[in-house]
Amino acid sequence: MAMITLLTDFGDRDTYVAVMKGVIASINPSIAIIDLTHAIPPQDCRAAQFHLRQAYPYFPQDTVHLAVVDPGVGSQRRAVAIATPQCYFVGPDNGLFSGIGEPDQSIIVVELNKPEYWYTQTPSHTFQGRDIFAAVAAYLASSVPITTLGTPVDPQTLVQFMPSPYLLQNNRILGEIQHIDHFGNLITNIPAEAVQGWDWQLVIQDKTSSIATGQRYSEVETGKTIALVGSHGWVEIAVNQGNAALVWDLQIGDSVQIYPG
Amino acid sequence: MAMITLLTDFGDRDTYVAVMKGVIASINPSIAIIDLTHAIPPQDCRAAQFHLRQAYPYFPQDTVHLAVVDPGVGSQRRAVAIATPQCYFVGPDNGLFSGIGEPDQSIIVVELNKPEYWYTQTPSHTFQGRDIFAAVAAYLASSVPITTLGTPVDPQTLVQFMPSPYLLQNNRILGEIQHIDHFGNLITNIPAEAVQGWDWQLVIQDKTSSIATGQRYSEVETGKTIALVGSHGWVEIAVNQGNAALVWDLQIGDSVQIYPG
Amino acid sequence: MAMITLLTDFGDRDTYVAVMKGVIASINPSIAIIDLTHAIPPQDCRAAQFHLRQAYPYFPQDTVHLAVVDPGVGSQRRAVAIATPQCYFVGPDNGLFSGIGEPDQSIIVVELNKPEYWYTQTPSHTFQGRDIFAAVAAYLASSVPITTLGTPVDPQTLVQFMPSPYLLQNNRILGEIQHIDHFGNLITNIPAEAVQGWDWQLVIQDKTSSIATGQRYSEVETGKTIALVGSHGWVEIAVNQGNAALVWDLQIGDSVQIYPG
Repeated sequence: MAMITLLTDFGDRDTYVAVMKGVIASINPSIAIIDLTHAIPPQDCRAAQFHLRQAYPYFPQDTVHLAVVDPGVGSQRRAVAIATPQCYFVGPDNGLFSGIGEPDQSIIVVELNKPEYWYTQTPSHTFQGRDIFAAVAAYLASSVPITTLGTPVDPQTLVQFMPSPYLLQNNRILGEIQHIDHFGNLITNIPAEAVQGWDWQLVIQDKTSSIATGQRYSEVETGKTIALVGSHGWVEIAVNQGNAALVWDLQIGDSVQIYPG
Repeated sequence: MAMITLLTDFGDRDTYVAVMKGVIASINPSIAIIDLTHAIPPQDCRAAQFHLRQAYPYFPQDTVHLAVVDPGVGSQRRAVAIATPQCYFVGPDNGLFSGIGEPDQSIIVVELNKPEYWYTQTPSHTFQGRDIFAAVAAYLASSVPITTLGTPVDPQTLVQFMPSPYLLQNNRILGEIQHIDHFGNLITNIPAEAVQGWDWQLVIQDKTSSIATGQRYSEVETGKTIALVGSHGWVEIAVNQGNAALVWDLQIGDSVQIYPG
Repeated sequence: MAMITLLTDFGDRDTYVAVMKGVIASINPSIAIIDLTHAIPPQDCRAAQFHLRQAYPYFPQDTVHLAVVDPGVGSQRRAVAIATPQCYFVGPDNGLFSGIGEPDQSIIVVELNKPEYWYTQTPSHTFQGRDIFAAVAAYLASSVPITTLGTPVDPQTLVQFMPSPYLLQNNRILGEIQHIDHFGNLITNIPAEAVQGWDWQLVIQDKTSSIATGQRYSEVETGKTIALVGSHGWVEIAVNQGNAALVWDLQIGDSVQIYPG
């Protein structure tokens, strides 16, 4: 059963996403399509990369992950497809695929330069999600070999975002908020590994109020704040049955610190 | 053709819903997945129950309805699966499944305590939609018997919300608004049966302006208000081609009365 | 592989869309369903027609396009199904299907008056998307002949919106903004054909600042405005990596002019 996931910044107001699905179905109507999210802030490649990395490991072997957040559409930025031992990725080479694959895995990257596998040989300069990426993803999900779809390039040349700047300093971890979810939970850039095995305490900026540390939202009373390792594997600040982003008035990029507690 | 519906309070900004779909597809990629809605207000189990009850009767025999609005995630609240003669339900036992099934039907309820049918034997304490419920729903939709997935418990022990408080008093019905839909239509908690067979008149709180009663929005002029029995079987207040919630400035919980008219 | 697309003004807050999908699946669970958009402004048939026309050409042969924006639901407006050589349409006859099909093509239009192909023989007066249209679309996608579903009527009697009023006047094109997309791009009603083959310059109302003309967003600096022919085939005003609707404070219906430049 072939499967494509779709992540964009296209929102829900237009039919841009639907048109990409129509292109896929026109090439192979038996492909199952699952939306990751279309609510990435416009042109926010870092947010797109965060969400893509959260989601892709949960999909079946050989799923094609089609990601179109493409501020450079129509410019010289490369269009690429990537094969890892588990799955495929298709989209613009602008950092979306930073950190894809395990460090010691061999991955294949091709530059998409075979117009016979596009939706049209004269693609739009403003919507290559439709004219190039959706078609290539559909062929990849239909077992066309990746090296048929483009010319191999050195995986080392893929655009990579710098890793998020969490720092270890005198027994203290300096991190920041990298995502605020629908519930107002504040997802930091501090991974579970960094706090594993010791007692820790989280402090928000200059706010010295103590925050409980635990494992479950329900360990604190309704309306109280708790720091825990979230289901995505990052340290998270939550308010039990409330909205931590509103309670603490914090934004993406605001800093947090972790101390031995 | 196996089918799972999905109702959550996860919104559209994150990939939480997508990750649950990935878990389902990893277990059985041929299952069709249909979203009921993901716009339940955070932690609002009553709203979730209302929407679930509106929607589930329209789905095919043996559909699995997976509902995850779970303010007590990680706490001692039970995780359950339910079999009725028509379909299945999976989710936390917190009232979501109040009133499921017909009163004289025998239903089976199991407590989900077989980790071999979970996505992981060490589930997250904050996202059991992914680690327990999605996996169980996928196995149920793949014909694994419900009693394999958990230990049977007394259906009488399911958490039940009290029925909505509409009252009959001296020929008068006292009800309230239980839902405001996308169009601003005000859905009351007064069922069609309560007004069937007599002429009735609806009054909103202390607002004495007369409201027409009818069957179709178009029976009143554009911008005028009409009370009718809506498609969901509840008495509804609507403005023809307008937004009744804005026109009347009403909220969920505000009271309405029905008189013989 | 049977396919139905779905376009409504139902939003994402309720289960109205899901219920239509349940009705379709109850009739034929193997039909693939793709959402075009459900964010049409309530009762805005012109917006619905615009989006439907943008999207439908990208879908496979024989796709059924189900469109329910239905301010006259329950009134005397006709319910119709349409067959073109490429695909089918189902919905209310209120202008949604204006301009469907090529001028020289023969199309078949039937009035839906065969209750045996509805979900219920006593349809609701407020939700015929569920009780009539979804069921008819499912039967059409399951190869029931269109003339079985209703009585043929003269295609000339379909409700048609007047074509959008772009004018050619002394070498000048007078047009207006017909849609603002999720990115804030301003889509005019001036088609590519009108500007093909000459150098042109776009002026917004009385704003005389010069706007670059080009083919790609990236031809101007970040934050600068460019006029180009968009991927949908209309002249479009965009701000590179910005929001033209906010920058220029424009609304749907505001006028633009094109001069030889």
